[in-house]
Parts: sequence; C-alpha cells; structure tokens
Amino acid sequence: MSSNAFGKLLTVTTFGESHGPAIGCVVDGCPPGLEISAGEFTQDLQRRATGKSRHTSARREADEVEILSGVYEGVTTGTPIALLIRNTDQRSKDYANIARQFRPGHADYSYWQKYGIRDPRGGGRSSARETTTRVAAGVIAKKWLAQRYGVTVRGWLSQLGPIVPQGFDWNAVEENPFFWPHAAQVDELESYMDALRKSGDSVGARVTVVADGVPPGWGEPIYGKLDGELAAALMSINAVKGVEIGDGFDVVAQKGTEHRDLISAQGFHSNHAGGILGGISTGQQVVASIALKPTSSLRLPGQSVDVDGQPIEVVTTGRHDPCVGIRATPIAEAMMALVLMDQALRHRAQCGDVGDVSPRIPGTLDG
Amino acid sequence: MSSNAFGKLLTVTTFGESHGPAIGCVVDGCPPGLEISAGEFTQDLQRRATGKSRHTSARREADEVEILSGVYEGVTTGTPIALLIRNTDQRSKDYANIARQFRPGHADYSYWQKYGIRDPRGGGRSSARETTTRVAAGVIAKKWLAQRYGVTVRGWLSQLGPIVPQGFDWNAVEENPFFWPHAAQVDELESYMDALRKSGDSVGARVTVVADGVPPGWGEPIYGKLDGELAAALMSINAVKGVEIGDGFDVVAQKGTEHRDLISAQGFHSNHAGGILGGISTGQQVVASIALKPTSSLRLPGQSVDVDGQPIEVVTTGRHDPCVGIRATPIAEAMMALVLMDQALRHRAQCGDVGDVSPRIPGTLDG
Amino acid sequence: MSSNAFGKLLTVTTFGESHGPAIGCVVDGCPPGLEISAGEFTQDLQRRATGKSRHTSARREADEVEILSGVYEGVTTGTPIALLIRNTDQRSKDYANIARQFRPGHADYSYWQKYGIRDPRGGGRSSARETTTRVAAGVIAKKWLAQRYGVTVRGWLSQLGPIVPQGFDWNAVEENPFFWPHAAQVDELESYMDALRKSGDSVGARVTVVADGVPPGWGEPIYGKLDGELAAALMSINAVKGVEIGDGFDVVAQKGTEHRDLISAQGFHSNHAGGILGGISTGQQVVASIALKPTSSLRLPGQSVDVDGQPIEVVTTGRHDPCVGIRATPIAEAMMALVLMDQALRHRAQCGDVGDVSPRIPGTLDG
Amino acid sequence: MSSNAFGKLLTVTTFGESHGPAIGCVVDGCPPGLEISAGEFTQDLQRRATGKSRHTSARREADEVEILSGVYEGVTTGTPIALLIRNTDQRSKDYANIARQFRPGHADYSYWQKYGIRDPRGGGRSSARETTTRVAAGVIAKKWLAQRYGVTVRGWLSQLGPIVPQGFDWNAVEENPFFWPHAAQVDELESYMDALRKSGDSVGARVTVVADGVPPGWGEPIYGKLDGELAAALMSINAVKGVEIGDGFDVVAQKGTEHRDLISAQGFHSNHAGGILGGISTGQQVVASIALKPTSSLRLPGQSVDVDGQPIEVVTTGRHDPCVGIRATPIAEAMMALVLMDQALRHRAQCGDVGDVSPRIPGTLDG
Repeated sequence: MSSNAFGKLLTVTTFGESHGPAIGCVVDGCPPGLEISAGEFTQDLQRRATGKSRHTSARREADEVEILSGVYEGVTTGTPIALLIRNTDQRSKDYANIARQFRPGHADYSYWQKYGIRDPRGGGRSSARETTTRVAAGVIAKKWLAQRYGVTVRGWLSQLGPIVPQGFDWNAVEENPFFWPHAAQVDELESYMDALRKSGDSVGARVTVVADGVPPGWGEPIYGKLDGELAAALMSINAVKGVEIGDGFDVVAQKGTEHRDLISAQGFHSNHAGGILGGISTGQQVVASIALKPTSSLRLPGQSVDVDGQPIEVVTTGRHDPCVGIRATPIAEAMMALVLMDQALRHRAQCGDVGDVSPRIPGTLDG
Repeated sequence: MSSNAFGKLLTVTTFGESHGPAIGCVVDGCPPGLEISAGEFTQDLQRRATGKSRHTSARREADEVEILSGVYEGVTTGTPIALLIRNTDQRSKDYANIARQFRPGHADYSYWQKYGIRDPRGGGRSSARETTTRVAAGVIAKKWLAQRYGVTVRGWLSQLGPIVPQGFDWNAVEENPFFWPHAAQVDELESYMDALRKSGDSVGARVTVVADGVPPGWGEPIYGKLDGELAAALMSINAVKGVEIGDGFDVVAQKGTEHRDLISAQGFHSNHAGGILGGISTGQQVVASIALKPTSSLRLPGQSVDVDGQPIEVVTTGRHDPCVGIRATPIAEAMMALVLMDQALRHRAQCGDVGDVSPRIPGTLDG
Repeated sequence: MSSNAFGKLLTVTTFGESHGPAIGCVVDGCPPGLEISAGEFTQDLQRRATGKSRHTSARREADEVEILSGVYEGVTTGTPIALLIRNTDQRSKDYANIARQFRPGHADYSYWQKYGIRDPRGGGRSSARETTTRVAAGVIAKKWLAQRYGVTVRGWLSQLGPIVPQGFDWNAVEENPFFWPHAAQVDELESYMDALRKSGDSVGARVTVVADGVPPGWGEPIYGKLDGELAAALMSINAVKGVEIGDGFDVVAQKGTEHRDLISAQGFHSNHAGGILGGISTGQQVVASIALKPTSSLRLPGQSVDVDGQPIEVVTTGRHDPCVGIRATPIAEAMMALVLMDQALRHRAQCGDVGDVSPRIPGTLDG
Repeated sequence: MSSNAFGKLLTVTTFGESHGPAIGCVVDGCPPGLEISAGEFTQDLQRRATGKSRHTSARREADEVEILSGVYEGVTTGTPIALLIRNTDQRSKDYANIARQFRPGHADYSYWQKYGIRDPRGGGRSSARETTTRVAAGVIAKKWLAQRYGVTVRGWLSQLGPIVPQGFDWNAVEENPFFWPHAAQVDELESYMDALRKSGDSVGARVTVVADGVPPGWGEPIYGKLDGELAAALMSINAVKGVEIGDGFDVVAQKGTEHRDLISAQGFHSNHAGGILGGISTGQQVVASIALKPTSSLRLPGQSVDVDGQPIEVVTTGRHDPCVGIRATPIAEAMMALVLMDQALRHRAQCGDVGDVSPRIPGTLDG
C-alpha cells in the first residue's frame, strides 16, 4: 500500500509538489455508471482556492482539472480515474532563500531529516497545495454518496482563533469567505483577519464537518472503524493537531447518564456520540471536528538553524495564509466523503446493501 | 487487508469475543532475534487487568499468554508470533437479559444494524476485552523499540472526570491504580470513584501517552503520517472520542509566534508540535492525548428499544467499569508502541537506518 | 499487510510451525449468517492428511479444529473467525541432526540466509504442515461459495511423475488416495509409488483444479486480476514451480484461430481461456493447473554444506512424502476457493451483486 | 489497496486507456537520492514500442515520458514519482464497428459483463498499451537495483510458436526485433512472421526473464513469497496464461535426486529451483518464464455475439500484433525488476540490509 494513497476499496493516490509541473490523483474503485465531467470539479476547487478573499495566500491557481482516464462518454467505467491539475502560478524564486533554512514549526526540518533531501519550493510535497487533489477526489465521492444513498457532507468554520459562532445557519456558510455559520459576525472576522495579517502573525482554527443521511452499519470494527478512519483521514490534513467525533474532548467531564444517547421508537433523543458507536454508524448525523494550528511561515522573525546546524533568524516573505483553517472546510468535507464512500463499498461487500437488515431505527429526533 | 488488523510492516491481527473461548492475536513482521518469553507479558497485562482495584470491573481473568508460534528457543525467528489468551471468567448468564435489548450508547445497536446478528455476551467483539490482545502485542513492540533504538513509551491518566493533576512525577504513576501522576491526589480520586460507583453512574477520562527517544524521520507522508496513524490507532480504542497530538485543540486559539517551536543549535526550545511536523518525527518527545467517554453500561435505567423496535427501559447489571479510562493507559501505550515500531521498519526500508542522514539536531532543551 | 496473510476482503492470516505447539489461522471478512461447525472441517482435513495411505508421511495428526471466535450459536457473526489446530505428533528429535545442515533443494538454506535463525524442527514455518490451515480456511470459502452462488471447486491429480490419466471420471477421484480420475490406473500408481518409496527417491506431480458456476465478472483488473491472484495463491503452495490458466503453456504453439473461444447465442464453444479473459471471469469453468516439484528430503545422500559452510553429505531420515503432489489437491482447491470468495466480495462492492448487468451469456456448451 | 496498483513498499499505480488522452503511473516508495531523468525511459520504451519492426502493430506512439513529481534537480526525493505519457496516435474510428461486438477471446466480453459499460476504443483499459507504464516504472526499479545491489534483469524470447532457440548468446538478444538469443535463426523468424501476418492469423510465444546478482534472503514467506509475487506480477501481463519458476512444469516428471540443487563450499552445482527456495532467494540467478497466448484480434472471421446476444461474425481490422509475445520481453523484465525492488525494501525493513547475516554461500558454480 502506497503511503501516498488512502482508502481500501475506493483508493485515492495523490502526487505532486507545490511548485512542480503538476499535481494530481488517481481514484481507483469508483463504481461504473457515475456521470462526471471536468466542470463538476470547479465549485469545490474554488471553495478551497486561495483566490476567494484577501485573507488567504495571494497565489492564484487556475486549478483546471483534466480527466485523463476512467471516464468514457461522460460516465465512469470502473477503471481508475486520473485527475491532473497543472501548477501555473509557481514563483520559486520566493523560496530561494529558505532552501537551506528550517522554518520553525514547518515540515522543512522533518523532511530533511527523513530523506536527506527536500524540494524547498513552496514546501514541496508538504505544501497544502496537495490538498487540492483531495478536494477533486472528494467531488466524486460526494456525488456518488448523494446519488446512491442520499448522503450529503458539509462543513463550517466552528472557531477562528478566539472567536466562536454566536448562531448557526447553513445558508450563511457559503455566503462568506470563512465558511462561517453566522452572518452577523462576518465583519468581526474580517477585522480580526486584517489586523492579524498586518501584525505578521497567524492563528489557529477549528472546522466541523457533518454527514447527513448515513445509514446505520457503515464502519468495520476493529481496525477499520469509521471513527478510526475518519481520524486518520482528518489528521492527515496539513496543520491538523486534533480530531474529535461527536462531543469529542467534552466527554472527559461527562457522566454516563449525560453522554449516552437515549432511544425511543421514534429515534435517538440526542447525538453525543456523533453518529458512531463501536466504530459503526448508527444512522444519525456523523459529526467530526478538527483543530488546525496557526501557519508557521511568518514575516515575524523566528530563531532557527540552517542545514549545517548554524543558528539563523528566519523570516518568510512568500505568499502564505495567516489562517490555514479558513480554507480547510472543503478539504475536511472531501476527506469525510472519501472515507464514507470507501466504507459504503466495504459494507456492501461483507453485509450486502443497506436495507437487508432490520429493524431500522430513525435518526435523531431533533436533528 | 483485514479490518481486524493494523500496521503495514508490523501487522497485528486480533480475534476473539469477550465471552468466547479465547482471545488472541498474530503479530507478523517482527524482526528475527528478539528474545521474548511468555512471562514478559505479565506486567502490562496486569496493568490493564480489571483486578487492579475495586474501581474496575469485578471480572477476574488470568490473562495467561501462550506463545503458539514465531519463537524458537526463546528468540523470534521472523515468522508470525501468535499469542493466545483463554477466557476463564465468563458469566454469560449475566447478559441473557440484554440479548434482545440495545443499551443506549453501546455498540449493541450498531453491530446489530450492520450484521443483523451479534454475540450479546459481554459485548462480544465490541468489548474492551479485545484490548488485552493489543497490550500483549504492544509488549513486543515496546521491547524491540527499547533494545533497538532506546525508545520508551509511557502514559498516564491526565484527567478523570472533572479532576486534573496538580503535579507531575513519573514515579507516582505506577504507584496507584489510576496511573495518576500526582500522589497527593490519589485519596481524592478514590473518594470520587467510590461515590461514582455508588451512584450507579460513570464518567469520562483523558489519557496522555508519550514516546521518548524517537529519532527524527519516522512517519510516511502523506497518508502514512506518524500522527495520522497514531490518530487511527488511538481512536480505535474502545470509548475514545478524540485524539490530540502535542497541544491538540489548544492550537485553535494560539498565534503562530506562540505555537511554532523555535530551534537553536542546542535543539528545540519547546514542543507544541508534540514531536511531529508534516507527519514526520522531529526527534522530540512524541505526545498524544485521548478522550474516553463514560461507560454506557449503567445500573441507572435508560430509555431504549429492543430488537423489535419496542420501547424498553434498560438496566445493566453485569460487571462494568465506572470509568473505562482508568485502565486505558497501557492500551494507549501499546498502540503508540505498535505504530512507532511499524514506522521504524518502514523508515529503514525506504531511507536506510537512523544515522545515515545529517545533520541531526538534538531534542527539546527543556524536555 | 501481513506477509502471512492473503486476500483483500476475505483475509486469511496463518501462523504456526511444523513442530510448535499449534498451527492456525484467522479468517476475516466472512459475511455474517453462514452456519459453520467444527465438524465441517474434518472431511477436507482428512483428504489433506498424511494418514490417507502408505504413500504419504507417517506423521499422524488428529487435525482437530477448535473455533475460537467469530461464530455464535453455530453462525458466523461477521467478526474474525480464528481456527486453532494443536500439533500432536511432533517428533523433534528426528530433526536434531539437521539443525546445522542445509538439505539440498530445501528452504532450510534460504530461511537461514534471510533470518540468520530458523526453527529446524520439521522445516519449521516452511513445512507443508502450514497448508493444513489453508485447507481449514478453504472449507469456509467453499461452503459460502456453494450456498451463495452455487459455485463448486474441485481438483484432481493430473500427472504423477511420468504417468498421465487415461480417462476422466469425477466419481473416481475421491475413491483412491491419489485423487486420480481414472480408476483403472490406480494399481499402476500404487506400484509406482511403492517402488519409488523403496528407492529412497521422490517425484513431481501436477494438479488441476476447477471451479464450476462462477458467474461472469469476477476479477479486478489490472493488478487484482482473477488469474493473477490465482497465480499468487497457487504458487505460494509449498513445492509449486509453475501455474497455468486454461491451456497454459500449450498456448505458446497455438494459433489465434485455434485458441480463441468462439461464442454463439447458446454460449462458448470451447474453453481454452480457462474461464478468464482480461483477468475477469467469463462465466465458464475456471481452470488452473500447478506443477509440484519432487520432495527434497531424501534418504539418498546429497552433497551440501553446513551452517559453517563446511561440506557435508545430507541424508534425511525423518517422515516425508515421496510425492508431495499426492496431497496437494485439497490445498489447491482451498486456495482457489479463497481467491474466488475474495473476488466475489470485491465484485459486489464495486459493481453490485451478480445479476445487475445484462446481457448474460451462458457457459461453455460442452462443459 | 487499489486494484490498479501493485507492490507493498514500492507501489506502482497505473492508469489510462488505450485511446484516452494519456496513460501514466505513480511510483511510490522509491528511496531518495536516485538520479533519474526523462531521457532514461527512452530505451526501454522503444524496446517495447510497436515501431520496432513490421512484425508489430502499426500504431506509432512517441511514448515521451513527463516526470510530474518526486524528482527535484534530477534526483528522487522520496515522494511519489508520477510519470505521464500522452497518447498521440489514437484512431478511434477503427474501433467504431466493434463497440457493440465481442471479439472471441478478448476482454471485451468480460469487461462488459463486469461493469455493464466499457471503453471500446482499442480495448480501453484492457489494452496492452497499459504495459507502457509498467516498463516506465521498471526503468526506475532496474536502475535502483543495479546501483544499490548490482542486480541486473534481462529477458529473451524463448519460443515463438513452434520455433525454439538453437543457441544462446546475450549479445544477439538486442540485435533483432524479437529479442531472440540466436542470430542464425532470425531470418527464419522473419519469414515465419511474414507468412503469419499474411494469413491473418496470430501465434503464441514464450518469454524467459532472469535476474543476476540477487542476494540470498529476498522474499517474504508465506504469502509474500518471491515466487508468489513474481507469479502474480507476470500473470497480470496481458495474454499471459502460464508462469514458471526455474524448471517449471518440467519438475512434474523429475525425480528428487535430479531436481535438488546440490551445494558445495564453492556454491550450488545447478539451478533447477530458479534461484528460489521456500519463497526466498538463494543467491542464484532468479529465473522465470511466461506463456503468452496468440492475439485474439484477427482479420479472419470468428463466430461471436453482440451486446444484445445476437449472433455475429467478427472481423478485426484495426492495428494489432500478430504475436504479442514479441514485445513482451521488456514488460516481463519490468515486472521482475519491480517485484525485486519491492522485496529488497521489505527485506531490509525486517532483517536489515544484505550482509548482516552469515554465512553467505556463493551462487551457481557454472552460472
């Protein structure tokens, strides 16, 4: 199994460096018969793209997807779907000065230690540019899940530095550059980010992603659990330092009577579990949250060493996001969708398709 | 790849139900030449066992390990090591009444939905009894890591319900039944647990586990990252709802200048990253924490349904832990050790052994 | 992925040495709901066992299977099925003299070179004793294939040294200790084997195995082809040096007009392809043959070296089969059954179950 | 694990259809530090290419490799190497007439049965065009094996229809369009092929491939055996119906005293085993042979059915090879090289690098 691939039956292999000629992925295991065209990738790639607002990196990529294989006359054939995205806005000279430096908090250092060599241009393979290919693959998974099982995957920014949402409205999420669920706070966020950018510093964020319509039974115990694979998939996103399912770390202080989700004939009364018990979906909304660290590439000088171990002061002048979390929502959605599609295929392999087992108990009463 | 197996080069496959004849595992990929005997499993299995104190389940298992294969004259030969542990204290009648009931918050429900059948005795496969085999496998990984690379893996209970440690001393951890790092608080914990047990309720907990001595370079980007695989391994432990690396969710409110770990010729100045950058170890202490939910098997009645969808009130009278987190420390250590050993083998496959790449920069100055 | 495991969705992990305490396997991925009992393993294990006739090793093993997990009240639950077989007739002293010797043609040498250590008792892990666990796992696959899809897997000895069958009758195959399809030749085989045994020499054999009822569509191109996986599975059997699908090496001298299997509305007119085109089953009988080398453990002295590289003359006095091919038929059947079941599960994951695609064209007219 | 990928530590994922915009592969797991440039792929791709002689398909592809990732300043970095080859000589109209027909003996039929849809242009994914990407990946493996371990992989055409070599000279192999090892027979082959092409028929072939310099110890028992993985890799090549290791099917009629390779302090006296015992290399030459069936796409009419099951007569007028075996030598070499490199990496993960275990016994005396 390639370490640049994930998924057991729906396997996505990604490749490419930030400033290489191209990035891309191979999506293998997609069932035949799904209609897909190059244009369908545009929306989610733009949601992830840097061009969405002044609060993200100034790099401007066309992010045009070329479908190289696996689709015939607009329909998937069951063979591997290769997606290619050319890099068009590399400015490798921006990085010349850091080729021999280790930015504090950056994968520069660990790649160098592991491989003894690294592509310093824009972070090379460790750049978040790689996540573009995840989002592209996720478009396929989202469409298949929606068409085949009526499953939808959506997310939002659930914290930006110290700021938390004061309200929640799905309609607001796509109407601002932060995926923020409360329109009244957007001005506050803009101001916060403007000040942050001017200061030269960066900040962390939290993203929550949910799947509605997931039938009970998806997830393979013990080491292919739905929550275990979500954790791996979400933790693999650049800058993520924590993953929660349902109530997450809040469960530490909860009592059992408080946490357990009671059930009646009409369904569950609550969803502290985040839709997963014993690694298997319950039929409720699947809920996961991630913590993203502040960007380590800063204009503010930081103490470090160079490749010879000599002390230096690092200042990063390239194009960087002051808060990588702002663009993480579509990436997290893609990862959840890919995990769910993989688990859906695995479930029907071992247990037959949804609907073969009864009784089925409806989802959460209140949500 | 079996869904009851994990690890790429060191692969552990586990089997067994809580009240079946036996549980066990097959550890494949261990290098030849490691001395190992049945007695070496005793210590960690006792650390995990229920018999450690009155605060855990009354089930008493001998947990004797039989080595079925892979060891010749006390030394591993490179062939698969099968470990067998007979169940000796099953009381399946305790569970007769719940065979047709779904305990709220328990995997009863999701297993039934997935498979249309389940072994109701003691939770069957979903029981934490399965973790015994992880701990056994972890003993091998811990020994190999220590002998080959000088790596040690240790953990402690970092929160019990609302209580957090007021001090830290490694010597304290093994001197109380909670793996608590501050001796002065043990009485308080005893009292808390006694009251909890009497109330019939349960509570969550938090466990932190660290590895010292991990060389820089372990971890395979992008989808075999050290943190991604730790997240999957730790989330797969029963009752875990959240995983953090380093500062975890605290990074959300951190600034970049606060989070990034500065470096000097003498080493890192801090370890917010938890020893991992870009999915690769940095040479610092590797740090992970998990959130464990409160046990869902309670004496206090809870509203639910039976297999026919009829409303019932569930009362669980079997032997259960009021706080599963108390026994989770050795399990989390085992999972971290297994992930690290797997990554160590993968690293030397692709990049040669530790020491082939320079420069090496020492670990955290203050830690 | 463990190197002692095979199968993607139906994964079988085997363990155990010839003269260790036990051998066994873990079968993971079997769908829930299959009835299985310990007694059902008896027939195929006896077919494989050495006690069938004087022409095989004098070792007598009870080969009693204990089901350790995965079966509740006689029915599979979807969790891993662990099967344990205790070794009861080890005579390790027989092997004391070869602990430092390399038998010519035996894995003694290569295991030593790879691991620097080996269990010399009865060949350790390299012994054909390991195949007992494959046969046990195969019993599950055979039953599931038969019940779910009406697929049957059967084999026969298609050549013994220089002797080839002069006729074919399925009824004959199970009526003699050779799995020979022509009763009139059994006396000749008995005489041949008696003379061979007296001479102290051994001989090779060929086994053919077929599956009837395989629906079209099983097999995953390009690197999960049905024929590719059959080749791997069959080549992994001890002593196998060649694998053929359908006409096998006869295709080298065939013309295209001779080889291609013509089709009419009633079905295929021939089956040179062995039921597989492009790595995918066609709906015809799946046909594979294997070549097994003569046993290398001989009473007749052979020139070799010891672990110090010193020249020696090796004479093997333990209990050995003069023709391992005689017992290989049930092993080959098991491997084909396991590959087919795995592919069946994979097919229904990606493409839905058999019957969803049309047109279907019947199997071979004459077969 | 993707079904379009192979290899455990060196994983090659291929994609692309015969007449789609491009084919390509992602090579993941190559160690850092290997120099590689686009020009290095030319030689082996030309050896495989159709343009080598009039005896192969008239399709003319430039087969220019673009390295999309994983190489920085001419050196591998340890990240995935993506190779892209644009298709430039598609003539899809040639295939319009067969979109609804099944060519007898062709994967047309089985792909349709599996997926319910297929790309009919040039065989789509089932075309031997896919093997171009294997050859490209193999170039990397060959170079690494040669530089790191001094291993070379070479092959030749060991039978063409009824014709077998009457002599053997490595120097001859690359001097004719057949990879034939005996120059004096080349005229005979030319005449045979000219007559065959005129007749409209096709013929089978046999290819042998060997690796010199393989150290003892490569190969992972039981289900990751070197011979098992070679069998899978070679059987996955289009048109292959049989695989042999060493003496292959000749072992069936051999005696043990004839087959076993005797050893003296100077090395092995023969190599019937083909360099592999118990699935592990012995240090001798590794030898494998494959049988390739005659092309099924013929000008001579053949009885078949269309997608509606109606009887038709199929005549294939596109560009096809009358003997696919002629071009198979570099493909088989590539597959052997990729398997060996993967096993080399796996060996050093579990057992350390070559040279750590003693004694080492030299290779075959006479070879």
